[in-house]
Amino acid sequence: MDEIVRFNKESEEFYIPLSFRGKETFKQSSGVILAGDIGGTKTNLALFHFEENTLKPIKKESFKTNDWSSFLELMATFHSKDLPVIDSICLGVAGPVIDGKVLGTNFSWELDEKKIANALKVERVSIINDMEANAYGLSVLAKKDLVEIKDGTWNRGNAAMISPGTGLGEVGLYWDGTHYHPFASEGGHCDFSQRTELDLRLWRFLQKKYGHVSWERIVSGPGIVNIYEFLLEDKKVAEPESLKNKLNGGDPAAAISKCAMDESFEICKEAMQLFNIYLATEAAQMALKFKALGGIFIGGGILPKIIDMVDKDLFLHHFIQSDKMNTLLEKIPVNVIMNDESPLFGAAFGAARNLPKK
Amino acid sequence: MDEIVRFNKESEEFYIPLSFRGKETFKQSSGVILAGDIGGTKTNLALFHFEENTLKPIKKESFKTNDWSSFLELMATFHSKDLPVIDSICLGVAGPVIDGKVLGTNFSWELDEKKIANALKVERVSIINDMEANAYGLSVLAKKDLVEIKDGTWNRGNAAMISPGTGLGEVGLYWDGTHYHPFASEGGHCDFSQRTELDLRLWRFLQKKYGHVSWERIVSGPGIVNIYEFLLEDKKVAEPESLKNKLNGGDPAAAISKCAMDESFEICKEAMQLFNIYLATEAAQMALKFKALGGIFIGGGILPKIIDMVDKDLFLHHFIQSDKMNTLLEKIPVNVIMNDESPLFGAAFGAARNLPKK
Repeated sequence: MDEIVRFNKESEEFYIPLSFRGKETFKQSSGVILAGDIGGTKTNLALFHFEENTLKPIKKESFKTNDWSSFLELMATFHSKDLPVIDSICLGVAGPVIDGKVLGTNFSWELDEKKIANALKVERVSIINDMEANAYGLSVLAKKDLVEIKDGTWNRGNAAMISPGTGLGEVGLYWDGTHYHPFASEGGHCDFSQRTELDLRLWRFLQKKYGHVSWERIVSGPGIVNIYEFLLEDKKVAEPESLKNKLNGGDPAAAISKCAMDESFEICKEAMQLFNIYLATEAAQMALKFKALGGIFIGGGILPKIIDMVDKDLFLHHFIQSDKMNTLLEKIPVNVIMNDESPLFGAAFGAARNLPKK
Repeated sequence: MDEIVRFNKESEEFYIPLSFRGKETFKQSSGVILAGDIGGTKTNLALFHFEENTLKPIKKESFKTNDWSSFLELMATFHSKDLPVIDSICLGVAGPVIDGKVLGTNFSWELDEKKIANALKVERVSIINDMEANAYGLSVLAKKDLVEIKDGTWNRGNAAMISPGTGLGEVGLYWDGTHYHPFASEGGHCDFSQRTELDLRLWRFLQKKYGHVSWERIVSGPGIVNIYEFLLEDKKVAEPESLKNKLNGGDPAAAISKCAMDESFEICKEAMQLFNIYLATEAAQMALKFKALGGIFIGGGILPKIIDMVDKDLFLHHFIQSDKMNTLLEKIPVNVIMNDESPLFGAAFGAARNLPKK
């Protein structure tokens, strides 16, 4: 691992001026940083030397979250004695962070800034929402890291990010006139809204299963499986035996999208089209709620893998469907983030923000 | 008119620390201010002496917007020669403000900062969205101006405001750790989301009428009428002749809520109950999208008039209905703003923000 990551500059092709809680430059900061991107499936940890707006990697490793009973247990393995002393830690965690504490939304870790600081003897520990780390990660992206799926012009105004993965992460970016301030959102847990009779039947199917139907039940990896299972029932179609085995394997959502790509089973293709439609619909809800004239960014691990399959016309058609705000929605660019390490780098800049001045 | 209004202070019972685009105190400002709250139905204008965080009224008047063909025509009547010269103007207008210009959403006035500045010979003129003025108005409220309809504790975090009126206004308040920054939202135009089979039938009824069903079609004055008309059709009930006449009068939503209060026609009562349920549902969507731990405020002209009829248990039940975020929603206080002049005072502080230093 030898890649060096820099904080983006106004002179670069893609530039989204981020504010890290009032800190807009890191020129005077240096030190050793631990960054974490902690989700229900995967935990990425990285140790960096930070200097002059630049992250120089020391050690980086990916873990299966559920193989460990706590973050501190994992740290005992990751941070061996030969590694340098850590000056600042920032962890992006998939869960609602309140007063420096969080309980993972789809995993059982409890994290607490103070307890981690005491246990690891590191003064500066900050826990942020994983989606906030996602947003901070925009600060390291280049144009090559983005694929535009709806065009638009960058306008002075808020932005937002939507990340389908194990769950559905969302984050807002407040525009103060010169910089963006990321803020946590739990919008993935908002109620699903229907536009067609098919949508109504999907809602009924999921309501029976879950009681309450949030966007996360549909626009996520498990959501792809939900849509697929609904279509099987709705169309009274039997699942091919060959697919059944693949679905019982490790990642049924990946199996469905792979099958949609090779077009071996029509239902899989339809499921992925519906996933695209619902992603567009919820992205539009965010665009309206946040008045996101600065654009919508799609993060998470799913879209980069299926990017060749995304029907841009279908996305566009379902993104621009409001009663009075189509002119607003037309202006808004939508881009997919192809760099899946950006949340980790985002957390790293979150840690850099707390470094003392040189 | 002799009431004096002060910018609220941390020592007071209710305190929401607002940032007026980076301005958090007005101690050094003084001058004569014109504030306006301009909507499709009503225009409130007020002239104040401003000094030491305090608004001292000179003249205040309410007009029917449609009685005048333009703001400048109205001003020729309002601002007579015996009144002092104006130093700063701020107008909160119901419409999308772009580059200092706005066309009213439900009325035909066009307002332009530069044209107003030239015509009135006032250097400092700013036009803001009416919902932004609503949010600024939080800075003058006292505890007596609020009615709590769901309890909770004030937590460090974003807040949001939802104002059912002619349309459905929404505004977010970004919390930077010490102050709130209001930002425009078009969330009232988000898709309606259903939770019951009755909701589905309401959706079908409105889809037939409008093509697209936004929250504004339901959680607003015209929305009350929509819900009522849906219930008549859904329950196959004939409308009493006496009510028919009242509904053909000036304000059918007011007639329905009045009828619900005296319980003369069951459908009106049910319509108002559904309005309450849908308000709670959409307030919860905002709470989740904005992660509004700082609270939800309900503005607009409807709630203060029906406050005695609001079933708090019903509101609570429908506010706390998510898949995984009930713990978050439980924490969030929801308050109705009973002072319908707060947007006018909000605009006044918007004008004070632009006063030169003493």
